Amino acid sequence: MIDQGLPRGSERAIVRSMTTSDNTAETPAAPTGVAAQDWAQASVDPQYRAAVVDLLGALAYGELAAFERLAEDAKLAPTLADKAELAKMASAEFHHFEQLRNRLTEIGAEPAGAMEPFVAALDGFHRQTAPSDWLEGLVKAYVGDSIASDFYREVAARLDADTRALVLAVLDDTGHASFAVEKVRGAIDADPRVGGRLALWARRLMGEALSQSQRVVADRDALSTMLVGGVADGFDLAEVGRMFSRITEAHTKRMAALGLAA
Amino acid sequence: MIDQGLPRGSERAIVRSMTTSDNTAETPAAPTGVAAQDWAQASVDPQYRAAVVDLLGALAYGELAAFERLAEDAKLAPTLADKAELAKMASAEFHHFEQLRNRLTEIGAEPAGAMEPFVAALDGFHRQTAPSDWLEGLVKAYVGDSIASDFYREVAARLDADTRALVLAVLDDTGHASFAVEKVRGAIDADPRVGGRLALWARRLMGEALSQSQRVVADRDALSTMLVGGVADGFDLAEVGRMFSRITEAHTKRMAALGLAA
Repeated sequence: MIDQGLPRGSERAIVRSMTTSDNTAETPAAPTGVAAQDWAQASVDPQYRAAVVDLLGALAYGELAAFERLAEDAKLAPTLADKAELAKMASAEFHHFEQLRNRLTEIGAEPAGAMEPFVAALDGFHRQTAPSDWLEGLVKAYVGDSIASDFYREVAARLDADTRALVLAVLDDTGHASFAVEKVRGAIDADPRVGGRLALWARRLMGEALSQSQRVVADRDALSTMLVGGVADGFDLAEVGRMFSRITEAHTKRMAALGLAA
Repeated sequence: MIDQGLPRGSERAIVRSMTTSDNTAETPAAPTGVAAQDWAQASVDPQYRAAVVDLLGALAYGELAAFERLAEDAKLAPTLADKAELAKMASAEFHHFEQLRNRLTEIGAEPAGAMEPFVAALDGFHRQTAPSDWLEGLVKAYVGDSIASDFYREVAARLDADTRALVLAVLDDTGHASFAVEKVRGAIDADPRVGGRLALWARRLMGEALSQSQRVVADRDALSTMLVGGVADGFDLAEVGRMFSRITEAHTKRMAALGLAA
């Protein structure tokens, strides 16, 4: 391995360098339109408001589902220390959920109602991709979180300042990535055949994530309209296409860094 | 129901009044022996030290197992709000686990090693008492937590001041009790037949808890010696018997308050 001698924290550096933020250097520095407004100004537009409620609802249920998934995966942990590590991540996801739920209440939206439209897609994703062992669970946590994080970071740049700050705060690294990367690379080093199986698994995860995202986009008018530039600033259909290709590209790089062919 | 008009917080008051602390008014106010010492003084005795490592290990794994159990039960929740409530409790248990694990490290014990001896008994308890629905899960959370809390409170009074403060801190009400009581009483009000089934379930939980406790007591010399007065202050075999009868009595009162014949 070329990075055999890297210090322990190096996985985190690799992880950070693999996010799409590196690919968006061309984004203008000064925000314009909605991105230059705060919530009080931006939410005057009822369509923008509905889109944000959708976004926060999707993110909130995503965190709650991630909590459940990680707690479930903790059962597969080979040691008590690994179990505790997964429980810690699950707990961090729950605290993100709390922040999003509180924000929904604050802006006058009913949290359960805001989350409900996304339950089927997220539960569907998790049902279709139940990991059969500890390593599959770790790859799923890593891939799933990274894709979700890339997507929300892209969207965040086009949101009003208040909503953007919240979205970025709950996407803060909970330590999933470096923990998963370290464990998965260790397992591949010990038995290179593991890599082939996990590469296939990662492809299946990406495919299922894309298919469930399409389902959500087809169902939710306000959210989709915002994504294609109807309400929020700077998005058009071509831009959405470019965004998806940036996310896919970042995924490919991450998988390569993990020792998996994407 | 006689308490139809009670304010929403009243379940908590009922819950508090049902703990064994009311039954131990005869406990002397000024601590003596180990209870009057701090950890630095008390831990000079290697047997006392071993007993405390056992106690913290058992409590730590208990919290981790409770985290998993509550996260699992969250799947049975009838609404998203109920699911969030259980996830919140699970997360609180995880934070208690963290405090105990950190304390074990602080006193030079290896957390996984300290927890390991209690994994079989606690996993056995949870396997034997997997709830088949939401209400059984709530009754289990309530009964299990209450018994554990009664037991640790009794033991805490005989510990050195530092260990006692930690044990009492992690037993702080995480809101399980009042949430469970409110939901279970509501279900019994709506369909009194539910009460019969849940009363049976609560008896099975108590039986299984006692049988797993005996297993632990038989296996762990240092801990058992402390409980029967060999190391810690003020415990003898007759006192242990009285402690178990106080715990059982408190359980019976709690079940009655819940509308269940114990």
